[in-house]
Amino acid sequence: MTVELISVGTEILLGNIVNTNAAYLAEKIALLGLSCYHQSVVGDNEERLEDAIRLALSRSDIVILSGGLGPTKDDLTKEVTAKVFGRELYEDAHSKERIQAYFDKRRAQGREITANNWKQALVPEGAIVVDNHNGTAPGIILEDKEKGKTAILLPGPPGEIKPMFERDIAPYLNRLQPEGIYSKMVKICSIGESQAETMVADLMDEQSNPTLAPYAKTGEVHFRVTAKAADEESARRLMEPMLAELEKRFGDYIYTMDEEVTLEEAVVGMLRERQMTVTTAESCTGGLLAGRIMNVPGASNVYKEGYITYSNEAKEKLLGVEHSTLESVGAVSPETAEQMARGAARQAGADAALSVTGIAGPDGGTPGKPVGLVYVGCCVRGKTRVEEFRFTGNRSKNRDYAVVRALTLLREELLRTEDKA
Amino acid sequence: MTVELISVGTEILLGNIVNTNAAYLAEKIALLGLSCYHQSVVGDNEERLEDAIRLALSRSDIVILSGGLGPTKDDLTKEVTAKVFGRELYEDAHSKERIQAYFDKRRAQGREITANNWKQALVPEGAIVVDNHNGTAPGIILEDKEKGKTAILLPGPPGEIKPMFERDIAPYLNRLQPEGIYSKMVKICSIGESQAETMVADLMDEQSNPTLAPYAKTGEVHFRVTAKAADEESARRLMEPMLAELEKRFGDYIYTMDEEVTLEEAVVGMLRERQMTVTTAESCTGGLLAGRIMNVPGASNVYKEGYITYSNEAKEKLLGVEHSTLESVGAVSPETAEQMARGAARQAGADAALSVTGIAGPDGGTPGKPVGLVYVGCCVRGKTRVEEFRFTGNRSKNRDYAVVRALTLLREELLRTEDKA
Repeated sequence: MTVELISVGTEILLGNIVNTNAAYLAEKIALLGLSCYHQSVVGDNEERLEDAIRLALSRSDIVILSGGLGPTKDDLTKEVTAKVFGRELYEDAHSKERIQAYFDKRRAQGREITANNWKQALVPEGAIVVDNHNGTAPGIILEDKEKGKTAILLPGPPGEIKPMFERDIAPYLNRLQPEGIYSKMVKICSIGESQAETMVADLMDEQSNPTLAPYAKTGEVHFRVTAKAADEESARRLMEPMLAELEKRFGDYIYTMDEEVTLEEAVVGMLRERQMTVTTAESCTGGLLAGRIMNVPGASNVYKEGYITYSNEAKEKLLGVEHSTLESVGAVSPETAEQMARGAARQAGADAALSVTGIAGPDGGTPGKPVGLVYVGCCVRGKTRVEEFRFTGNRSKNRDYAVVRALTLLREELLRTEDKA
Repeated sequence: MTVELISVGTEILLGNIVNTNAAYLAEKIALLGLSCYHQSVVGDNEERLEDAIRLALSRSDIVILSGGLGPTKDDLTKEVTAKVFGRELYEDAHSKERIQAYFDKRRAQGREITANNWKQALVPEGAIVVDNHNGTAPGIILEDKEKGKTAILLPGPPGEIKPMFERDIAPYLNRLQPEGIYSKMVKICSIGESQAETMVADLMDEQSNPTLAPYAKTGEVHFRVTAKAADEESARRLMEPMLAELEKRFGDYIYTMDEEVTLEEAVVGMLRERQMTVTTAESCTGGLLAGRIMNVPGASNVYKEGYITYSNEAKEKLLGVEHSTLESVGAVSPETAEQMARGAARQAGADAALSVTGIAGPDGGTPGKPVGLVYVGCCVRGKTRVEEFRFTGNRSKNRDYAVVRALTLLREELLRTEDKA
């Protein structure tokens, strides 16, 4: 069964946004065991949109359209698809109620419903209406059972399309495709992408069932092990040998095999297991590290307070970093990183502490201390360790790398802590 | 003159990577004043690639293909395009030399040339060969002057395609298209998207030259004014009336008309103009607000230190929030937000302070204080103001909204501060 993707939106054609929806949908569709040979982008133009839909239906069984379900006159996806399927549009009372309720909830914030929002309650005859729990436009499934063709219309905003796909579209597609694709995501930190891929080149070459595919993430490597099987149990048995081999080769570098678990979740989990608290003292990352730790629901169990110490004075005042250290070797030094970590742990009364001090760029570099030079300090139950990094990205990338390295460093140190209280 | 983009690569169809090249090329093409009505993705399949190229040339003047110029047997773009244009392939001595030199430079790193790299030196008869200064595959421009059709073949890796486009392809396309596209981005905060669009519905309807298009951002609205003209000066004159009208309608809600300037940059700029410093005291946003302020290069001039006070104890200890306040009305209250802001300003010796305290979710809500309830406090030169928000997103969205609202609140308060020191 073949699926084709059409992304609707002039803003994509103009390069104003990157088409992340296509990548998201493509990956999900592949996991469902469906084949996808075409993706296209078309603008908010009735004629070209109609041509695109007709072309897609001529060569694929299912076409998924994202975008163009908004309230403005440029939003045409529903109208044009209905025309291609020969269906009239009618006002769906259920969707209208949901749109009203959506605006009622937001009236206090000054969001008012406008007349054009009501067009979002129109649906083609015979369509399956899919509730949108994160926006106003319902999703639409239009089936032509005679011709064996299906069109699925989804809202453009990523925050709306993803939950809708997970909740309603994936199960719908799953029923059309008997075999399932099952996968496990093996997430690795502490080694680089090239090295990791070299370590499993042989497994990736044996691309049959299961398959092994790498995904690069900032400072991490994720390997997806995918098996095609009749049911979950058979898939598990198929994946077992490869997963065991990956565990053998990567050992502690693997921080989770659960696709949903992030590095910060894994680290917060380790702290909770050990009944330990952590604090952070950040300079160039300015709160991003703390923010990432607090991404984790329940982080309040392990994180009570933290410090942003951009200036030298702040490092001395809040963390007790020695003035003489700052004068002699400067803020960006292993000595300062260590004192920041120790000081933060002491100040917060925490079992562990992470510190980051560096030059994110674009300014601030010198021949001796170039842009990208970052020291990460980690103090766990009084023992400190400092790592030096020399990143080569822009300001934003350098800060992101520093945050991942800090979390990775803490994880490595926690692994050495045997005392699971 | 119309351009169409074809991205070649099965990894894009499988959703393994996001198609950033398409967004990059689309934006550049639009700025060159060329029209693009179609983008497609096709896999490493000879037949489908040929169909895609023929379809593109049937409806557009220029087709730009990215990807599939590598050394493996899956790399077919050159071969298939040559076939469509009826050209033989021959070995280009210049390209062969460059490939040899590329590997000579890298032999020390253990990179060896393999037999299949030589196929990258093959080019179609009559093609314009474009040197690749960041990889081995040369770019190819194939013109069929009789039929008025052009194919431009570019390497897939972003680090190779972007420099090649900037250096050689943009000038080539520029010569084909006399007019250019110029635009200004009017960025607005403090009001919602629907309301903002309603205020300019009449201007958007007059879609001629210049055009007005909205872009939704978290907590902000951006309007792009675009004009097509022979040169920048003519474009400026064309855009002037619409820009003046937007200023008239939105006034202080506009924080910049420079596409590159972010809200945090605008706010940091205002602080610098006023020679003021700012600090932050964050609870549920856990460092994201500080992190965003420090996104701005040179933020160190206005931001010296900040606090993450997740626990009640931390709020008392670091900021001097009164124990009795926390006991009576709790951490998530306007009183606590105000005391946090005042306390942070005092502690840091800063002219301004922002505080955020709330319930980001998914847990922690009660009937009286539901998930999404957030108080933002702003203290500017001793005067405080607190705003209450009731966000309705997930944990991540609620935190993002809180950060934008905090920056917006500070901006509003700074606007009232006349003293531009």
